[in-house]
Amino acid sequence: MEGDPNLQLRIFDLNCWAIRYLSKRRQERVGLIGDMLRREGFDLVLLQEVWSEQDYSDLKAKLGSCYPFSHYFRSGVIGSGLCVFSRFPILDTLLYQYSLNGYPYMLQHGDWFCGKSVGLGRCQHGGHGCFAPRFLQLHAEYCREKDAYLPHRLVQAWELAQFIRHTSKAADVVLLGGDLNMHPEDVGIRLLRGWTGLRDAFAEASRFEGCENGCTLIPRNCFTLKTELLPFPLGIRIDYILYKAISSFTVRCEELKTTTGTAPGMDIPFSDHEAVMATLHIQRQGRAAGATLSTPEPMLVDIVTEARTEVGVGLRAAQRQRYSAGRMAVLALLLLLVQATAALGALTGLAAEQPFPKLSFSGAPREAIGVLLLATGLHLFHTMEVKMLQGTEEQMRMALRVLQESP
Amino acid sequence: MEGDPNLQLRIFDLNCWAIRYLSKRRQERVGLIGDMLRREGFDLVLLQEVWSEQDYSDLKAKLGSCYPFSHYFRSGVIGSGLCVFSRFPILDTLLYQYSLNGYPYMLQHGDWFCGKSVGLGRCQHGGHGCFAPRFLQLHAEYCREKDAYLPHRLVQAWELAQFIRHTSKAADVVLLGGDLNMHPEDVGIRLLRGWTGLRDAFAEASRFEGCENGCTLIPRNCFTLKTELLPFPLGIRIDYILYKAISSFTVRCEELKTTTGTAPGMDIPFSDHEAVMATLHIQRQGRAAGATLSTPEPMLVDIVTEARTEVGVGLRAAQRQRYSAGRMAVLALLLLLVQATAALGALTGLAAEQPFPKLSFSGAPREAIGVLLLATGLHLFHTMEVKMLQGTEEQMRMALRVLQESP
Repeated sequence: MEGDPNLQLRIFDLNCWAIRYLSKRRQERVGLIGDMLRREGFDLVLLQEVWSEQDYSDLKAKLGSCYPFSHYFRSGVIGSGLCVFSRFPILDTLLYQYSLNGYPYMLQHGDWFCGKSVGLGRCQHGGHGCFAPRFLQLHAEYCREKDAYLPHRLVQAWELAQFIRHTSKAADVVLLGGDLNMHPEDVGIRLLRGWTGLRDAFAEASRFEGCENGCTLIPRNCFTLKTELLPFPLGIRIDYILYKAISSFTVRCEELKTTTGTAPGMDIPFSDHEAVMATLHIQRQGRAAGATLSTPEPMLVDIVTEARTEVGVGLRAAQRQRYSAGRMAVLALLLLLVQATAALGALTGLAAEQPFPKLSFSGAPREAIGVLLLATGLHLFHTMEVKMLQGTEEQMRMALRVLQESP
Repeated sequence: MEGDPNLQLRIFDLNCWAIRYLSKRRQERVGLIGDMLRREGFDLVLLQEVWSEQDYSDLKAKLGSCYPFSHYFRSGVIGSGLCVFSRFPILDTLLYQYSLNGYPYMLQHGDWFCGKSVGLGRCQHGGHGCFAPRFLQLHAEYCREKDAYLPHRLVQAWELAQFIRHTSKAADVVLLGGDLNMHPEDVGIRLLRGWTGLRDAFAEASRFEGCENGCTLIPRNCFTLKTELLPFPLGIRIDYILYKAISSFTVRCEELKTTTGTAPGMDIPFSDHEAVMATLHIQRQGRAAGATLSTPEPMLVDIVTEARTEVGVGLRAAQRQRYSAGRMAVLALLLLLVQATAALGALTGLAAEQPFPKLSFSGAPREAIGVLLLATGLHLFHTMEVKMLQGTEEQMRMALRVLQESP
């Protein structure tokens, strides 16, 4: 950004819902997304849920001429699903995997297997300036009324905020795009925005065009689950572009657009989510601006306290589950010991005197071993969960202390 | 570091080897470490392998008056074992867990269960300056000749280097202390130092006092395994303090010390590792210095290429293991299908005609299910391993491109 003090940056963000064998009309939609991206020529394209590396390779082949730089972030069993296409050289990437991401035994929700993460790229623009887009997906919300994953999502929001705070200074402009799986007024979003000073492109945009309230999951998109959106007739906004300027730059959102249920000129949408497109105006200032948080500190104290309370609720639930799993493992072990003693008794000739009641153990050892292994696995998993929730609660306590002590 | 342009910073680093039930004379040693730390009054204490939270709490209670700020990093099943004690306020912490860390089925090596990580603290000193110590432990080396974990340790070294590059700018001075489980000339250390510009306190120190060559695992320490050190009669150096200055500071290592087998004035050592103690002299400069790498670029290209080759070797091994596990899962599934068909045949009255050879399947379904589950688990694990190794190889390729293209 050396030389010309002004830069217009056009960013495209979309949760592509491209799960092999599961997502409807996947290949057709990925093709449409590629065509549109080539036509529109954005500066930076942030995509989520591109689970198939083949889809990424197809997009890369199609977009090579207008987006010469790209990166696919690998993680978890299935992958992170994150990829970036850029007009500017990508200097460096870093993947940060959240420490908590659902439960491996909740197969129907599948979040655990994705290795949800935040990807960081550092792109060079012009002379010496650079911007650092981060893009991500947080744990999905499956039931708003009884949201068992809220503590995990809050841990992710907190880790994301901390990651952004610690890595921001390496760039002039910080961008965050992705499916945060949180409504704008949710505590996780307020925490993320308050703790990092990131600004919401939808709220700040001079011009807006698209779905009402900037919604990105809407009933009129033919791929969305209508029952999930019943309480929200207009839809919900869970995909965001956030930004902030570091050092001697200012950023302003000139325009924000979303798609509106179908791809322009087509009969199907790009995805079950709407795409978010922002045009940012970046300007170099004369002098370096100090780091400021956009949320006043007393309000931030309230937000962190609220988040900490929720994490505490999750912590106590995890402790109960760890205890139950541990108890089951101990019971299975005791059963095995009883069986082993009975077998030993029989071997050493005590069997004739019948010191133990006649119980039928046929086949039981295998079941007991199975239960023991399963319960031990669960116990270990919930031990990790407890540790991560405790760690986050402790970090939030530290943040509150620093906030309250600051003049 | 505002106001006084000079600062002397005394740092203590030790791998405490404090594993409950396993480490010899643990409580006595932790007590000795606490006494010494209170007596010596360092500015910053970085401890690893404090696996028991009770030990951390005991240390915290003992050290509260001279080190009012402390933090314990939680991760994995057992924990990260990392904690920090500081004379200066800790503003913020962040834990980065490596994506690869050994194998869950290598129970005797146990690294997988520790959730090995790098902890980052940001400490405020004086007016506005701050320093950011990072402390960590990398995957242990169990056999130098046939080191199956080398690719994992290289992934960790690379992720650590990337993490340091991306988070460095948030502080004035970056410190790294810990048990890197690598000899000074190993490719992982050269990669870490070359890619981050960190300097080795041992190599740079004006004065040195301690074990020959700065070794931190020595044969005369009564807790070390003598057989492991047979090829190295003087011992090996695997614990380090590294540093670099960001922005307008310079750092110089005035003195480096190690313990020499026993705790001063005692008959036992603090740990099976020797402690490393550095005295750094930090000075504010008039103007901001540019970011420089200490290793010349052509040499850095060689180092990254060498590391990438090793990661490639690990990748091919992981692909082979993934393939074997997948094949075993398919075989187990086929066996189950054959059994199910046989059972179905018997049920539908076909049994009388004996369409299948008479095979004894008694108890077999359970075994087949067991093998299927185990092989599937292994397949998933090695799939993750392949993805992370591929991701690291890709990042290194990108780094090489940037290095080769830079003027």
